Amino acid sequence: MTKLWDGRFNEPTDRIVEAFTSSIDVDRKLYAHDIEGSIAHCRTLERAGILTGEEADTLVEGLNRVRKEIEQGRFTFDDRLEDIHMHVESRLFELVGAVARKLHTGRSRNDQIALDIRLYLREQTGFVLDGLLRLAEALVDTAKRHLDVVMPGYTHLQRAQPVLLSHHLMAYFEMFRRDALRFEDGLRRIDVMPLGTAALAGTTYPIDRGYTAELLGFSEVSANSIDTVSDRDFIIEFLAHASLCMLHFSRLSEELVLWSSAEFGFVELPDAFATGSSIMPQKKNPDVPELTRGKTGRVVGALVALLTTMKGLPLSYNRDMQEDKVPLFDAVDTLRICIEVYVRMLPRLQFRKDVMRRSAGRGYLNATDLADYLVGKGMPFREAHECVGRAVAYALEKGRELDELELDELREFSSLIGKDVFGALTVERMIDRRISAGGTAPDQVKTALQRAEDLITEERKRRQPQGKQ
Amino acid sequence: MTKLWDGRFNEPTDRIVEAFTSSIDVDRKLYAHDIEGSIAHCRTLERAGILTGEEADTLVEGLNRVRKEIEQGRFTFDDRLEDIHMHVESRLFELVGAVARKLHTGRSRNDQIALDIRLYLREQTGFVLDGLLRLAEALVDTAKRHLDVVMPGYTHLQRAQPVLLSHHLMAYFEMFRRDALRFEDGLRRIDVMPLGTAALAGTTYPIDRGYTAELLGFSEVSANSIDTVSDRDFIIEFLAHASLCMLHFSRLSEELVLWSSAEFGFVELPDAFATGSSIMPQKKNPDVPELTRGKTGRVVGALVALLTTMKGLPLSYNRDMQEDKVPLFDAVDTLRICIEVYVRMLPRLQFRKDVMRRSAGRGYLNATDLADYLVGKGMPFREAHECVGRAVAYALEKGRELDELELDELREFSSLIGKDVFGALTVERMIDRRISAGGTAPDQVKTALQRAEDLITEERKRRQPQGKQ
Amino acid sequence: MTKLWDGRFNEPTDRIVEAFTSSIDVDRKLYAHDIEGSIAHCRTLERAGILTGEEADTLVEGLNRVRKEIEQGRFTFDDRLEDIHMHVESRLFELVGAVARKLHTGRSRNDQIALDIRLYLREQTGFVLDGLLRLAEALVDTAKRHLDVVMPGYTHLQRAQPVLLSHHLMAYFEMFRRDALRFEDGLRRIDVMPLGTAALAGTTYPIDRGYTAELLGFSEVSANSIDTVSDRDFIIEFLAHASLCMLHFSRLSEELVLWSSAEFGFVELPDAFATGSSIMPQKKNPDVPELTRGKTGRVVGALVALLTTMKGLPLSYNRDMQEDKVPLFDAVDTLRICIEVYVRMLPRLQFRKDVMRRSAGRGYLNATDLADYLVGKGMPFREAHECVGRAVAYALEKGRELDELELDELREFSSLIGKDVFGALTVERMIDRRISAGGTAPDQVKTALQRAEDLITEERKRRQPQGKQ
Amino acid sequence: MTKLWDGRFNEPTDRIVEAFTSSIDVDRKLYAHDIEGSIAHCRTLERAGILTGEEADTLVEGLNRVRKEIEQGRFTFDDRLEDIHMHVESRLFELVGAVARKLHTGRSRNDQIALDIRLYLREQTGFVLDGLLRLAEALVDTAKRHLDVVMPGYTHLQRAQPVLLSHHLMAYFEMFRRDALRFEDGLRRIDVMPLGTAALAGTTYPIDRGYTAELLGFSEVSANSIDTVSDRDFIIEFLAHASLCMLHFSRLSEELVLWSSAEFGFVELPDAFATGSSIMPQKKNPDVPELTRGKTGRVVGALVALLTTMKGLPLSYNRDMQEDKVPLFDAVDTLRICIEVYVRMLPRLQFRKDVMRRSAGRGYLNATDLADYLVGKGMPFREAHECVGRAVAYALEKGRELDELELDELREFSSLIGKDVFGALTVERMIDRRISAGGTAPDQVKTALQRAEDLITEERKRRQPQGKQ
Repeated sequence: MTKLWDGRFNEPTDRIVEAFTSSIDVDRKLYAHDIEGSIAHCRTLERAGILTGEEADTLVEGLNRVRKEIEQGRFTFDDRLEDIHMHVESRLFELVGAVARKLHTGRSRNDQIALDIRLYLREQTGFVLDGLLRLAEALVDTAKRHLDVVMPGYTHLQRAQPVLLSHHLMAYFEMFRRDALRFEDGLRRIDVMPLGTAALAGTTYPIDRGYTAELLGFSEVSANSIDTVSDRDFIIEFLAHASLCMLHFSRLSEELVLWSSAEFGFVELPDAFATGSSIMPQKKNPDVPELTRGKTGRVVGALVALLTTMKGLPLSYNRDMQEDKVPLFDAVDTLRICIEVYVRMLPRLQFRKDVMRRSAGRGYLNATDLADYLVGKGMPFREAHECVGRAVAYALEKGRELDELELDELREFSSLIGKDVFGALTVERMIDRRISAGGTAPDQVKTALQRAEDLITEERKRRQPQGKQ
Repeated sequence: MTKLWDGRFNEPTDRIVEAFTSSIDVDRKLYAHDIEGSIAHCRTLERAGILTGEEADTLVEGLNRVRKEIEQGRFTFDDRLEDIHMHVESRLFELVGAVARKLHTGRSRNDQIALDIRLYLREQTGFVLDGLLRLAEALVDTAKRHLDVVMPGYTHLQRAQPVLLSHHLMAYFEMFRRDALRFEDGLRRIDVMPLGTAALAGTTYPIDRGYTAELLGFSEVSANSIDTVSDRDFIIEFLAHASLCMLHFSRLSEELVLWSSAEFGFVELPDAFATGSSIMPQKKNPDVPELTRGKTGRVVGALVALLTTMKGLPLSYNRDMQEDKVPLFDAVDTLRICIEVYVRMLPRLQFRKDVMRRSAGRGYLNATDLADYLVGKGMPFREAHECVGRAVAYALEKGRELDELELDELREFSSLIGKDVFGALTVERMIDRRISAGGTAPDQVKTALQRAEDLITEERKRRQPQGKQ
Repeated sequence: MTKLWDGRFNEPTDRIVEAFTSSIDVDRKLYAHDIEGSIAHCRTLERAGILTGEEADTLVEGLNRVRKEIEQGRFTFDDRLEDIHMHVESRLFELVGAVARKLHTGRSRNDQIALDIRLYLREQTGFVLDGLLRLAEALVDTAKRHLDVVMPGYTHLQRAQPVLLSHHLMAYFEMFRRDALRFEDGLRRIDVMPLGTAALAGTTYPIDRGYTAELLGFSEVSANSIDTVSDRDFIIEFLAHASLCMLHFSRLSEELVLWSSAEFGFVELPDAFATGSSIMPQKKNPDVPELTRGKTGRVVGALVALLTTMKGLPLSYNRDMQEDKVPLFDAVDTLRICIEVYVRMLPRLQFRKDVMRRSAGRGYLNATDLADYLVGKGMPFREAHECVGRAVAYALEKGRELDELELDELREFSSLIGKDVFGALTVERMIDRRISAGGTAPDQVKTALQRAEDLITEERKRRQPQGKQ
Repeated sequence: MTKLWDGRFNEPTDRIVEAFTSSIDVDRKLYAHDIEGSIAHCRTLERAGILTGEEADTLVEGLNRVRKEIEQGRFTFDDRLEDIHMHVESRLFELVGAVARKLHTGRSRNDQIALDIRLYLREQTGFVLDGLLRLAEALVDTAKRHLDVVMPGYTHLQRAQPVLLSHHLMAYFEMFRRDALRFEDGLRRIDVMPLGTAALAGTTYPIDRGYTAELLGFSEVSANSIDTVSDRDFIIEFLAHASLCMLHFSRLSEELVLWSSAEFGFVELPDAFATGSSIMPQKKNPDVPELTRGKTGRVVGALVALLTTMKGLPLSYNRDMQEDKVPLFDAVDTLRICIEVYVRMLPRLQFRKDVMRRSAGRGYLNATDLADYLVGKGMPFREAHECVGRAVAYALEKGRELDELELDELREFSSLIGKDVFGALTVERMIDRRISAGGTAPDQVKTALQRAEDLITEERKRRQPQGKQ
């Protein structure tokens, strides 16, 4: 098969080298973007007078036919044709004849692949943002439906202070919201039109790159041709944001795994989201959170892969950069499916309100409040802390909670303690009192939910036009 | 030594455990930020009526004295005191007595350390942004001073097409500019005030977190107390941006290493920026670019370290998170010194104009232009490419460049070739013709330089108020 | 200050470059190995007739004095002297005069640093192996003391089948044993003498490299001079083994964190190995396991750092390789302290036998055994599994365990079930029946303990001669 | 479709969850190993009296039929059947009926998948070792055919001292040999039979695990059932070794990229191993080395992926571990194709002997030898170094090499220099003099080649029996 470039070569490519260098198994995923880009390139060449209107029409029509053939599975892929660009162009030639050979005027595969990935990643970022928005809704919705659920808040996985489940869930709202902001920031650096830089130095044809950008809906035209074909920053940036997002999923998943253990017993996964064991008939395993947690490694691995690949490459394009697509595609698919699965699973989680409430009442979670009580009576905080520490040691020994001690026993630790102490030590009172902005007091949590709903509504409006998936 | 928390403990901490858990060797670096945060906390407690004006004044004065002692090296660090917070508070107690014990009211070490790192990283991001701005200036300045230098542009490290050195340098301007934009984006997520969330649930004291934010110059108050003490996203994001920035340095460094080799001979490093060999007297080694390239690994390693550490942690604070500081501090220091070294070295690079120009003229870099010439005469691009490929093979065999072939020889490959072909094949003509936006034609490069200078001026104005280092 | 190499330079090194390129802050740690290597080099030069016996004696004596000065803190480090080699040699010159200048004959800093790191890492690997051996003893000892403790075994963090705590602990014995085997394998590639390759090509002096190896106790002499100064494999390999070892610590630590939670309640950390909270008086936090788990990131980061640094470097020595030491030293120190802390903590863990036993009896852990019972009665396994699955669903609904159902109720699921079923469903019976090699039946566990003790004894004997720390 | 485990479930699995948790797209690759393991398990069950001989024969025959169907592409995969184990068993049931349901007696998918991966990785390690052996042969063969080629040896990519190309190539022989040793070390930890541990605690059936091991050719039986199903060390270890091996390829590839540049011009890649440009007709790009260098990232990414995934997982099996296969399979395939491509490309590289020789003679590579010459005349090395440094500075200024200076000019730098100096400064003399063991002197190199050939022969003999691919 004829190569695009074999004029100066005396020997055909070794078969194993074709297999080794071919990227068609991977980049065929980009066919629609490749064709979309080629159509815009046609129209730009037409406007520049390099193609006649008729030629351009023929090419565009031919490209659309190629797209249809691929969509309908009537297209033959062959790794001797190296990449998606060659596949499309070669088929185009069969369909429309010699004029196909004019399509590559003023561009190179170096800027063409940059364009394809940017189109792809712009679209995928949109899908991710849509997904994160639906995830935010699912979190807010779940939080709203569980405003009456009290649970122990943890530090060091030790029960620390009682909190509302809604407040805990809204911590994830914040994390995924930051993720969305990061993906949007990254979008600004994806949304840059690379075509027209040709191999590396710019093209000699009088094409209007702004026009290509306009046709493809890009906000910006890349500023330096050498940088344009050397740059994979926007992919690495996406992978970094995806890694952080997966990190959040790994934390949420860890909690669901813990919470669905017999020991915690806080949550029951819906049967439809769990699997069993081939050997142990009683098992109901939290496979979805486990796999999600495990897939974090995959996305972090993709980030490291590309950082390693790009390290130390001189300008401009180097073939090493072909290795960007496997990690990118895998990370995109992984992230998107994790979002989808959680969007569907979250609304169906059954929280065991009683178990959670009971846990919040055991384990001296009111120790801080006893200290605060003493501070209210005039004791410096550090002293109050020590004093309560001794009371806890005493209660531990007795096998009772602080609020199960007699007033006399409590007064052994400080004469400042009065009868009113017991009111201060209930779970509800403790929660009600965390009134600092962003705290777990119900009013604070309701305010947070309202703010979240407003943010979502606003975002939904803003995204309306692109709200496709 | 008395711990902050040993009320309920029956046994002193094992000595090796003190050494293991202590972070003072690392977090002492944060002393100024810790004290700055404590002062703002004092004033917030005062405003809330928890401290009297007098108490607050005493504490603030005491804290300032502690700061001075540390600055002047008159302060004793001891790993039994765990961390910087305890060191400051313990010394404060010695200086001002019992009132010191009131300082920790309404806060926890969990939100305190979050504050310290945010203050530190906000400041460091400012330094990095300042450095990148000076680096941008150095690049633009170097590019402006070398507008007459022509060099071969490379793809696959093969000579591809001639470009201006200035154009090549400006590719790095684009990369570092993207880095700056990313650091600024990240700053928005660093610039969030965490104090007042206490251990995890919010505090019961009626403090005004907005006031603390105002005192410390934060734009925002964190929205969810559990998230606030669980969150290290902003550090990981910084490390991701730093890794990308180091990646750019690794590429620039790779090029300087190549260019200062005997084989390329494009650049002479200033003696002050090179070192010799202890055994080979002739050696002048590009140690600065080599080390910079090598240090890329260190920053990528820091990113991976923290991603690994945070993976799968349940909410909220876990002690694992103490491991954030070593990688962060190391990455910050590494990035900053690399920027500084390049800011100083770039202006002193001596480019060997003659060698570069000569290289641009050897190696058939005008093959594309010969193809374009044929396209201009009506041949489809793909055909022209093949035709020139054969001409190159012929010229290679003859050991001559394309422009050294006779017209008759050239016409063997296509009768479209006329006498005017030689004008199209000079290095200067090739460069002049790359006129697409962002291309290497001198006018395009000058436009790019002007735009860069405008961006820098604007940025400098915008950064004025924070322009400290 | 005079450099080793400034003969051909016209300009002193820029001060920031000295700071940037200097490694003395890091490699001073290697002083003893550097001096040990220099002494062996002296003797090799003497034997080759390059130094007289008197000269060699003078140098050796001088080197020993330098070592003593450093040990006693009477030595001044200065980053203008670049590295530890220069510091030692420069001080040697002050002490013994001109003959010091002969020491560097036939070697280069390239092979000298390779030697220093190999000496260092050989020693450190020995310490790590000693530590892992003591850790193995601690595990075996703990397992032996708790042969009567039954706990639930988990898959997916769901209770699966009852196991002996000793059996569970011995899983870690296996992991750390594999680590030790890996470190020993790696040692074979560390234990190679590099000196005498000079800068890269070999030396012209007739030195006997085998003699140097003998003096320094190396088993092998490196085979190719270019490889010798280019090679950092042995460090990366060590870091990979260290990462795996830390992974094991991260798993053990995760379990201790879980087990010391209120929900599990399986273990009580000794007060001496836990810390409290500055705000919550009741807290007893598992900081040691948490920090250990967190430090895993640090070691993995070190591995990635060096892989990234070395990627794509041409032969032979490049200055990038100086960046090997920070990650290596940090990883070595991290690994060693984690081992030490666990060696001390393990024997002091208090397992809550009753809680563990109770947990093993709740949650249908006998479902598999009921299925096995049915298989024993002739039902194919897959059918038995399904049948028991239905019984579990029924029991769940009734809120009872399988062994709390009436015989009649059980027989609803299969008429094969007889009165003897109850004997099959006790925790003890279940454990006793896991008799396959490596299973949790007490006899199997005892056999495993015996084998472990034999391995340790053997290993201890084998390591006797090097059993220093 | 019926699940293996849905007895206790009330609701079918959500479709997206089936897609999410299914591993069949990935683990179908293991079908042959899965069936091989099942056959051995059958025979073990038969020997234990759990299956009759007839039943076992039926199952084995059925399993062989399933294998044939898959091999011949007549098998339908469906992600509702989760994994390869279920596919095989489900089809077996269709083929042989109810007896198929007995196959899963005494094992679980947890030990089954462990077995499959171990069988796979043992085989793949064999292929890798075979490949590395052929690579070693290719290197030695290439080195032997080029014993007359002299090139500049580099440090810091600066010409340092002349070496033989053969010596340089043999540095890679050493690297890949270490890789092979590491893979062999790892094999000892792969070659352990896991079956018979069932879910985690061991099985209650009286099976002889040693017999299964014998049937499958394993050297060892795993020692602890919990560890057995929790362990992925052997995969991570393989990935670490693979990363190091790819690092070596990245260095060799970097050199081939450099050497095939116009600037170096040391090597001509065979046309069959290079590709051209779609836009620049003159280009001949070193795509094979570039892609190889780029693929290094992919393997390092796989290592990081699995380290991240496994970090912090409690015992025993967790579903996260299913994520081991994508990185492993990708790394294995990547490594193997890189080896193959190099095995074929190396013999066809055309080294430009003249260019290399000329380069070795320019750039003061004889400076060290001039210093050695002075040492030979009695000057201490450090002084000689300085003296030659000044001579180089002088020669640089004059634009001549050291051996192009007049004797009188040389004597300006030291009166010790005599007429015999010129003999010491030729390239050949310099090479001849590097006679230390492992140096570049021709005799040393020949010795090294002989040793390498002996090692290969020995290894080939040793591997004979398994020498399949």
